[in-house]
Amino acid sequence: MIQKKASLDVKALARDVRSGSRAALARAITLVESRRGDHQAAARELVQLLLPDTGKAVRVGITGSPGVGKSTTIDALGTYLIAQGHRIAVLAVDPSSARSGGSILGDKTRMAQLAASDHAYIRPSPSSGTLGGVAAKTREAMLLCEAAGFDVVLVETVGIGQSETAVCDMTDFFLALMLPGGGDELQGIKKGLVELADMIAINKADGDNLKRANMTAADYRGALHILAPRSEHWHPPVETYSALTGTGIAKLWQKILDHRKAMSASGDFAARRREQQVKWMWSMLEQRMLSRLRTEASVRARVKKIEAEVADGRVTPALAAEHIMELLQ
Amino acid sequence: MIQKKASLDVKALARDVRSGSRAALARAITLVESRRGDHQAAARELVQLLLPDTGKAVRVGITGSPGVGKSTTIDALGTYLIAQGHRIAVLAVDPSSARSGGSILGDKTRMAQLAASDHAYIRPSPSSGTLGGVAAKTREAMLLCEAAGFDVVLVETVGIGQSETAVCDMTDFFLALMLPGGGDELQGIKKGLVELADMIAINKADGDNLKRANMTAADYRGALHILAPRSEHWHPPVETYSALTGTGIAKLWQKILDHRKAMSASGDFAARRREQQVKWMWSMLEQRMLSRLRTEASVRARVKKIEAEVADGRVTPALAAEHIMELLQ
Repeated sequence: MIQKKASLDVKALARDVRSGSRAALARAITLVESRRGDHQAAARELVQLLLPDTGKAVRVGITGSPGVGKSTTIDALGTYLIAQGHRIAVLAVDPSSARSGGSILGDKTRMAQLAASDHAYIRPSPSSGTLGGVAAKTREAMLLCEAAGFDVVLVETVGIGQSETAVCDMTDFFLALMLPGGGDELQGIKKGLVELADMIAINKADGDNLKRANMTAADYRGALHILAPRSEHWHPPVETYSALTGTGIAKLWQKILDHRKAMSASGDFAARRREQQVKWMWSMLEQRMLSRLRTEASVRARVKKIEAEVADGRVTPALAAEHIMELLQ
Repeated sequence: MIQKKASLDVKALARDVRSGSRAALARAITLVESRRGDHQAAARELVQLLLPDTGKAVRVGITGSPGVGKSTTIDALGTYLIAQGHRIAVLAVDPSSARSGGSILGDKTRMAQLAASDHAYIRPSPSSGTLGGVAAKTREAMLLCEAAGFDVVLVETVGIGQSETAVCDMTDFFLALMLPGGGDELQGIKKGLVELADMIAINKADGDNLKRANMTAADYRGALHILAPRSEHWHPPVETYSALTGTGIAKLWQKILDHRKAMSASGDFAARRREQQVKWMWSMLEQRMLSRLRTEASVRARVKKIEAEVADGRVTPALAAEHIMELLQ
């Protein structure tokens, strides 16, 4: 009976999400983020029910170091897009938020215009444990937002390697925000980022910074020129803009649309989405398997010990893997 | 009885490998590469027995596109090192060798000087299936070579993203070989490679190519300058050399030693080795778990079907992972 009731609730919740109810969307994301076994089963059912209503949004990942102006950029870009008739969902992947006690999106006042709009939905990063877990929950939250009718999803991430890869793996376009540099002290592009970015955008191209921003853009263009592009159908552009004045925001969006058009025409767009889904499945399977090793305290202690022996060079990885396999049986 | 006999053989084989017997080393690597269950168990025991005799070699990964001169470079570098009193093992990671019917190292005539030396041991890539499998076997072959007294291990790889990561994950120093470019048609550095390379070396800096090689090096230096280095203790240099004339070979080796010194002093060297070992353990565990999904034909067919449904967007990755978990129980 309880099973049946839960199942009915999920159907009602799916209907409410589909109708665009913000309260239902919030409840659905909370369900997805819950660690309770019955909640997780209900969440899987919910996302599966809504799956036909997903996939239509433009999914944009946005990264940048602290101070680059991620929040003001998202605020400006989101506000511009709402004026164009879009509905914007803003999500975040920040695995450190559990430790630091605050998410990068925790403070909605940092996106004052968007937070006040009925056409925007802002959700802070889930604050549970591992990057894999946080990313999985954000991916499902993205699907729920799409089912609720949000047609642009912006996923913010902190400028840390693995989080960036995770966000790139769930979006269609990965945007790296940078600041104007100054002469010799040009800030470095993190190497991993160069591989991921579909566009580099230099913020704060306004007032006294304008010239420096243009020089920085030229430097980055020179560097990117030497690197082979990820796709033969898209050479990542380097643009300048100002989140403060709004200059260049429309151009950033146009580049995102250009990319979508080029990738759709070549078939790369559909291929990237397919690959992302399959990769996601395998990573969830891996997490489920590894979570077995972490849930039982006695097993976990043994695994820690084996891991230390491998690190110290006392046991070969092959033998250690064998021991851990035995623990699982 | 059979069990005991096999166990005794492994001890004898370990002793023979330790004594530096080339025949024993070849037999040991063949054991590691075997897919038979009893061979794999014996191989695990063998590598564990020899583990205290491993870890002392300088481990260098070498990558480059076809035509860049990998074999002649390894031949020249190896011959130089033998003259310095070293013993050189050359291994390869080439997961395509099973399909193409030939390994990149299959033809020893491509390294004529090294192949003729008693102080070098050349072993082609294992030709079994997945990259993960090939890499695992090459890692263990590397340990066996170290136990047999080879104090420099060169691991060649084809210029393909995932193989390069695998080789970088098993070596101390990752060397990317490039050719001199010409003006506008400067060849691109693959982005993933920039993240991995500890040094970029431009081959064929001889005769008419010398000027072009120096210009290419300057261009790459400019590009690398903009990218943040992986370690604060090592900024990947860009060098020129000629495998044909031998010019610059000594300098390449000196840079490898400089790197080792800097990384050892900072503690990064030990940390990298520890991380590699732990990562290797988890990747072996993952392979063992996933191999369960591939061994039974009926399970494999179901997994393929589920994977296709996920790719087509008909089933969520979470639900698919759940189904696969059920297949495993």
